[in-house]
Amino acid sequence: MNEMKEKDIKNGEISATEKNEREISAAETEKCEFSPTDVEYIRECMALAAEAEAIDEVPVGAMVVRDGVVLARAFNTRESSKCATHHAEILAIEKACESLGGWRLPGVTLYVSMEPCAMCAGAIINARIPRVVYGARDYRFGAFGSLIDLSKIPFNHIPEVVGGVLAEECSAQLSSYFKKKRTKV
Amino acid sequence: MNEMKEKDIKNGEISATEKNEREISAAETEKCEFSPTDVEYIRECMALAAEAEAIDEVPVGAMVVRDGVVLARAFNTRESSKCATHHAEILAIEKACESLGGWRLPGVTLYVSMEPCAMCAGAIINARIPRVVYGARDYRFGAFGSLIDLSKIPFNHIPEVVGGVLAEECSAQLSSYFKKKRTKV
Repeated sequence: MNEMKEKDIKNGEISATEKNEREISAAETEKCEFSPTDVEYIRECMALAAEAEAIDEVPVGAMVVRDGVVLARAFNTRESSKCATHHAEILAIEKACESLGGWRLPGVTLYVSMEPCAMCAGAIINARIPRVVYGARDYRFGAFGSLIDLSKIPFNHIPEVVGGVLAEECSAQLSSYFKKKRTKV
Repeated sequence: MNEMKEKDIKNGEISATEKNEREISAAETEKCEFSPTDVEYIRECMALAAEAEAIDEVPVGAMVVRDGVVLARAFNTRESSKCATHHAEILAIEKACESLGGWRLPGVTLYVSMEPCAMCAGAIINARIPRVVYGARDYRFGAFGSLIDLSKIPFNHIPEVVGGVLAEECSAQLSSYFKKKRTKV
């Protein structure tokens, strides 16, 4: 594994103080309005994430759901598809656009097992997704409350964002993957 | 054209004062280090943008270049492909990843005729693109100096960004498209 890859998967890059500050900031912006159905979908995202892990990808799974109908399921394939944009959320949004036949996704909720990065948060805004529910917070790259919060920028569309659903379990799934990865190298 | 689409293409949504403030902020963060070659590539992006306009898409063109070799050319196809992620930059990054056989794009410059939005700026950061040159500023959605500046956020990769190359021409290309679009409706 080269240095850059090693750097990508290391967890210890932000200081404990900085992490604590980001946790406080994320907690302040977090809304707690989620239902048992939301929890079920996040659990299904974790199953999709496990499929990613099975092919040695960072375990992140995403779904797009409207009125109880699942429009898209996807998991991160950045390494296997050798493509920088192939995060779970982007692939799920693309499938959902195909399913609904347009670039706007009104009435949907996007579920994802880890907080979206800036690219994915931007795609969510571009697709006019009204609601996002995510699992683990991402203090290094998270763009919906942790490192930055794109839902607080005055874009023409502002999604409702619920973070931290099954956070500990989602976070443990990621940590376990990175731990195994470091041991292997 | 429905209300949402009308809203998307209207230019008059931010006040003159706000626009002025954003212009000052963008000018402060802007670097002016660009070469005649950069100008040529931005002109080529404008030609790609014209291809987008020919199929009634918002005219934005992008290229990825390394050591004088063009790895990718693309233009916005969001309407025709009915996909929220199909901005010129995303399509160019995907082609460049395919060309180089990996999700990291070291040593490249991404050229684009309009300032990247948050999704595209995030994709640029994810692909570890070291340098970005863009034309027109985008005071409504621009994520490299206008509405926000993702190159100032402490991500693990921070690209060098040069904005405003052939800004007036690129901006005129966009304004002309929107003007025609409004007259048609």
